Amino acid sequence: MKAQTHTPVEIFMSCSFGFSLCKGWKKKMATRRVPDVVPPPSEDSERLKTAFRGWGTNEKTIIRVLGHRNANQRRKIRETYEQIYNESLIDQLHSELSGDFGKAVILWTYDPPERDARLANKALKSGKQRITQLQVIVEIACATSPHHLMAVRQAYCSLFDCSLEEDIFASNADLPVRKVLVGLVSSYRYDREVVDLNMANSEAAKLRDAIERKNLDHDDVVWILSTRNVSQLKATFECYHKNYGNNIYQDIKSCGNGILEAVLRVAIWCMDSPEKHFAEVIRASIVGLGTDEDSLTRAIVTRAEIDMMKIRGEYFNMNKTNLDDAVIGDTSGYYKDFLMTLLGARI
Amino acid sequence: MKAQTHTPVEIFMSCSFGFSLCKGWKKKMATRRVPDVVPPPSEDSERLKTAFRGWGTNEKTIIRVLGHRNANQRRKIRETYEQIYNESLIDQLHSELSGDFGKAVILWTYDPPERDARLANKALKSGKQRITQLQVIVEIACATSPHHLMAVRQAYCSLFDCSLEEDIFASNADLPVRKVLVGLVSSYRYDREVVDLNMANSEAAKLRDAIERKNLDHDDVVWILSTRNVSQLKATFECYHKNYGNNIYQDIKSCGNGILEAVLRVAIWCMDSPEKHFAEVIRASIVGLGTDEDSLTRAIVTRAEIDMMKIRGEYFNMNKTNLDDAVIGDTSGYYKDFLMTLLGARI
Repeated sequence: MKAQTHTPVEIFMSCSFGFSLCKGWKKKMATRRVPDVVPPPSEDSERLKTAFRGWGTNEKTIIRVLGHRNANQRRKIRETYEQIYNESLIDQLHSELSGDFGKAVILWTYDPPERDARLANKALKSGKQRITQLQVIVEIACATSPHHLMAVRQAYCSLFDCSLEEDIFASNADLPVRKVLVGLVSSYRYDREVVDLNMANSEAAKLRDAIERKNLDHDDVVWILSTRNVSQLKATFECYHKNYGNNIYQDIKSCGNGILEAVLRVAIWCMDSPEKHFAEVIRASIVGLGTDEDSLTRAIVTRAEIDMMKIRGEYFNMNKTNLDDAVIGDTSGYYKDFLMTLLGARI
Repeated sequence: MKAQTHTPVEIFMSCSFGFSLCKGWKKKMATRRVPDVVPPPSEDSERLKTAFRGWGTNEKTIIRVLGHRNANQRRKIRETYEQIYNESLIDQLHSELSGDFGKAVILWTYDPPERDARLANKALKSGKQRITQLQVIVEIACATSPHHLMAVRQAYCSLFDCSLEEDIFASNADLPVRKVLVGLVSSYRYDREVVDLNMANSEAAKLRDAIERKNLDHDDVVWILSTRNVSQLKATFECYHKNYGNNIYQDIKSCGNGILEAVLRVAIWCMDSPEKHFAEVIRASIVGLGTDEDSLTRAIVTRAEIDMMKIRGEYFNMNKTNLDDAVIGDTSGYYKDFLMTLLGARI
């Protein structure tokens, strides 16, 4: 049996937890399960407060409540909790939880734009120019909706007293890398499927020219990647492949192993097929000795409400193993339980 | 008596209409008058519908209603009118009104982000590369709030099936002009007063270097002007003046009389002192034979709710005449009445 014949849903159905798409749970491309009848936020807040009380913390309750609520419901819980108990739910989670489990729950509980603004800030302030840091910014710029990216920029200004672009500008990344990143985060792409094939051909030629000259931060490259809508860019990448015989991703790779090449590759992948990018992020976080929990958490937390079903399918196609099995094999305790909850398991 | 001793409020008080800041009307830096007790939108809608009925249109009623409502109140009127009469208020204004009066009322009735998106589109589609067209885009990018600019970009995508940046990209302006414009409209500046003087000095030096080399679309210029907050930029322009003896505005002017130099001068003016820029737009629209009604309308309609009081003061300082007298002298009929209403007169 060829792996390619599996659809994401089949992969999902065959995953090791063996859960099924049963009545009473909503599920589409997202994996986290939200019951049809959700308790009022006051009841959820009360359950969380009870979980924090006394000796130790009832982690299972926290997973059961927060792991099964969507972003809007979590926002209401945060607001209601603060109203009832006059304290911040996030602060309380910080003081009650620790380790990778704590980090994952807190990241999940933030409003998504605030979460991503914090992830971007952490990446920029880490002092490292490694692609594992900078790709976080590319993911936010290229694999989320234009509206979400705007909300992240607004949240960034509110949280850090300067704009995201200013912090990119001030980072110690090389100038061409900063130029590309500022272009990408400043974009507000048209979000419908409109494609102009002549334009795709002409812009594929401009990209080809820049690649041949190894001039990857050329204004044309930055403009094309940061202003065109995603459908248009997919058509441009297809034209590139058709007209020049090679995948643009591979051609950029052949320009060098620098951060700039890596940033552009991630940007192209995030727009062309984000599910492949995140399947690869998860694979890279798990493969070899030790686990990169921060990357694993980020990929699952940020995509659980977007396209985790597709990522699961893509993971299987790429690695011939189940994503769920891989996560179970590399994590443990409440951290594992929480991630698996976001992946759709019944914990 | 030195003109400089006049404050904007004094100028306002002495203007030819002789109206005063009386009880029952709200006024700060905006000039249009909104009564303390505003009728419900259903009543305003009914008055407008009555004004449209029968032979001819009652223009005075239209001015009395729409000219005395703020953006939020106008939005409610638009929504309520559509609910009650199952027709668009804007469409109705289009069919009932004509000429400069009609254009001004319609521009005023649009939601401000939609209004500016339409102005930007008109400027880009006019086929002219003149600064009188392109400065509209610079004004939106540099003389409005970051939040408003985002809303304009969203409105642009909704209205014109592509992003504002894409249409700038596709315009027939020169490449360096398009590069600067895309940078400016993509900005989301931090909107509080935070200034780093070391940075101001260092970035003044970068701007100086680009000006000396006549390399005005250098990445540094675009980045500085499109990412820094307005207070920081004001400090940078001050440092430039202090360190190099000349005003940056004049130094850019000395680089040439091209569109690029003009775009940069407008951008700097719009950030450094928008009231001076708009006072100059009004003066230029009035001076000489004939009137540029489109520019006059735009300046008054777009700034009446922001800083028209300051513009009026600046206009007096620059021209030693009242802005109101100038508008009255160059306009007539309902068009004059409407503009004067937005300038705070009781019509």
